Amino acid sequence: MTSAARPLLLSNVRLPDGSPVSVPVVNGRIEAPGPNVAPPPGAAIEDGGGALLLPGFVEGHTHLDKSHWGRAWYRNEVGPNLVDRIENERAWRKAAGHDAGAQSLALARAFLAAGTTRLRSHVDIDTDAGLHYLEGVLETRHALRDVLDMQIVAFPQSGMLIRPGTEDLLGSALAAGADVLGALDPALIDGDPVGSLNATFALAKRYGKPIDIHLHEPGDIGAFTLKLLLDRVEATGMQGQVVVSHAFCLGALPEPQALLERIARLDVALLTSAPPSRPVPPLKRCREMGITIFGGNDGIRDTWTPYGVPDMLERAMLIGLRYDLRRDDDLAIAFDCVSAAAARGCGFADYGLHAGARADLVLVDAETIAHAVVARPRRKLVVSNGHVVARDGALTDLA
Amino acid sequence: MTSAARPLLLSNVRLPDGSPVSVPVVNGRIEAPGPNVAPPPGAAIEDGGGALLLPGFVEGHTHLDKSHWGRAWYRNEVGPNLVDRIENERAWRKAAGHDAGAQSLALARAFLAAGTTRLRSHVDIDTDAGLHYLEGVLETRHALRDVLDMQIVAFPQSGMLIRPGTEDLLGSALAAGADVLGALDPALIDGDPVGSLNATFALAKRYGKPIDIHLHEPGDIGAFTLKLLLDRVEATGMQGQVVVSHAFCLGALPEPQALLERIARLDVALLTSAPPSRPVPPLKRCREMGITIFGGNDGIRDTWTPYGVPDMLERAMLIGLRYDLRRDDDLAIAFDCVSAAAARGCGFADYGLHAGARADLVLVDAETIAHAVVARPRRKLVVSNGHVVARDGALTDLA
Ligand SMILES: [Zn+2]
Ligand SMILES: [Zn+2]
Repeated sequence: MTSAARPLLLSNVRLPDGSPVSVPVVNGRIEAPGPNVAPPPGAAIEDGGGALLLPGFVEGHTHLDKSHWGRAWYRNEVGPNLVDRIENERAWRKAAGHDAGAQSLALARAFLAAGTTRLRSHVDIDTDAGLHYLEGVLETRHALRDVLDMQIVAFPQSGMLIRPGTEDLLGSALAAGADVLGALDPALIDGDPVGSLNATFALAKRYGKPIDIHLHEPGDIGAFTLKLLLDRVEATGMQGQVVVSHAFCLGALPEPQALLERIARLDVALLTSAPPSRPVPPLKRCREMGITIFGGNDGIRDTWTPYGVPDMLERAMLIGLRYDLRRDDDLAIAFDCVSAAAARGCGFADYGLHAGARADLVLVDAETIAHAVVARPRRKLVVSNGHVVARDGALTDLA
Repeated sequence: MTSAARPLLLSNVRLPDGSPVSVPVVNGRIEAPGPNVAPPPGAAIEDGGGALLLPGFVEGHTHLDKSHWGRAWYRNEVGPNLVDRIENERAWRKAAGHDAGAQSLALARAFLAAGTTRLRSHVDIDTDAGLHYLEGVLETRHALRDVLDMQIVAFPQSGMLIRPGTEDLLGSALAAGADVLGALDPALIDGDPVGSLNATFALAKRYGKPIDIHLHEPGDIGAFTLKLLLDRVEATGMQGQVVVSHAFCLGALPEPQALLERIARLDVALLTSAPPSRPVPPLKRCREMGITIFGGNDGIRDTWTPYGVPDMLERAMLIGLRYDLRRDDDLAIAFDCVSAAAARGCGFADYGLHAGARADLVLVDAETIAHAVVARPRRKLVVSNGHVVARDGALTDLA
């Protein structure tokens, strides 16, 4: 999906461990980095000025199609419940003629300028909009195909079983280019946890796609649904192909150990935006048990929430604050949530700073990873897939 | 404490309700703002370019003396307990020769550049350092006296009763210029809630100073201490002169109503930094009951915490996230916590945008208060006490 970038030598940068290094890039891939590396033939040379080198950031869960990023301020007067927000949004977008193509492009470009080179976006599929929002986001993906690696989740934001026709639309979305099948609160939205999960897993199997489910259900009902879900991961052999987003219930149960053990065994990954006002899965415990747990912004400045910026360093900071991570080694965990762990959770291949990895590189003026997370300095340079896509926070004409 | 500023007309700005206005300033005070105001005689004219006008921000609780702001990154390898952090800090500052004067000046200037014109800082008083850190912060207060209204709290960070000599030092600090008597966890640090609170209230009465106590004590023990404190507010007639900082216990009790009613009746104010990982007092409920509850950053980039920026809009955003405030009217509450409510809680007089108020003004490119809180745009202009102290995020030579 990519056009070739000119060879590049990124010289005079520091690895997170402090060691000085230069990074040669050929055909969009990192070649062996080292302290004294000759430029590849025909390479452009970028002097990093001693800046800290980080791998390109990974947004594990956002909603590009919903955002008002760059538009007039949306005055939020929405009621407090999940259904209020669902109904308000669907009605508002229809009435306002929301342009998911233009909006997803604006937000995706802002992500890129801030160093995100890989991104998973949920996109609403419903019986009012059909595949309209998906088509807009597919256009964005195509426009940025050389510089942003995007996964699209076909997401039944308004429910699936409760809105007949949605299942077929989800199938059409997967056929039209969505990479992942989404789902939403099988009990509390769809009203039938068994029926809803059965339909979701059947659809995923039919199209050969992984699953990423929004599970907001709290406490005991969330645990009940989660157990049903794990049964189906096991029964369908979908180990390693399912993400549970939010999973608030895992932060509220007095004894989540048995559930966590099954999650680890079935290689189900967890996504958290680390909301300060909700229970969250136990980050360190999950990691110690071998569970992939990673981070995402969720919606950014939409009818659901006024908050959010397309900056994964800020999301890492919020993860750090939510889990009270203060030590440098702990802040490195927060950063891992928006880099390597997110790549693993979403299945983005060839991720990292090693030879052979896709050349997704970010330079910041910071002393260490922890410093970068708390200070969130402007990105000095962003390289994606071997292309220099941003300098000093502004996109180049390659993006 | 102030030198006179040249008269000023701040023209072409918008009030938070959207109405266009110009603001005349004479002798550091706002004169009657209105849509068509002639410049005061001899006034400099600042064209606001249609930007949003906010009152200068108020930092209700920080620790200027502890910060490493602008210094080399401090690698945090500290243990997880309160006592670990207390012992680590005292030892580190002694060994590193921490310069509280230079550090408090650097951080206070950064606050000012981001629109904070009034600030309450706790300053450590202990038997190792004596009044050394206080002297440094007093120098900072003096250096910025024309442009930053600073209150200093004499704070026994290492405990009071448990470190003999500390009580006398606190008295000396109040005599030397500290405005407020601080205190710390009477039960869990000082080990004697009755004895510790008695000593604190006696000292406050002797020096005629208000009290601001750090109360981290959780749940039932926190409620126990808080009740003892309220008894003493009542017995000493210190209604309206006591702040309880943090008060995590009020976020963890199943039924805090009786305590909250007494807090309201005794006009005790509450300070919260809205930490995402701790219980917090119920914001809206407190406000509905007439309790002044306001916001502060607490420490910024010190041995306790790597987090924090001297930007009260970001603190308002974190307050909004902690309390899940999404509507525009709710985000205005988050902003109130770092503006009018904080001025009321700390007792900063003549606060606001009305005629007669101290001319503390901030301009930002934002459509509404909610927009300013979530976007935290660079401050276009900061006026403090009638002086133009910052433009486009950078201090002028008046600060
Ligand atoms: Zn979501
Ligand atoms: Zn404090």
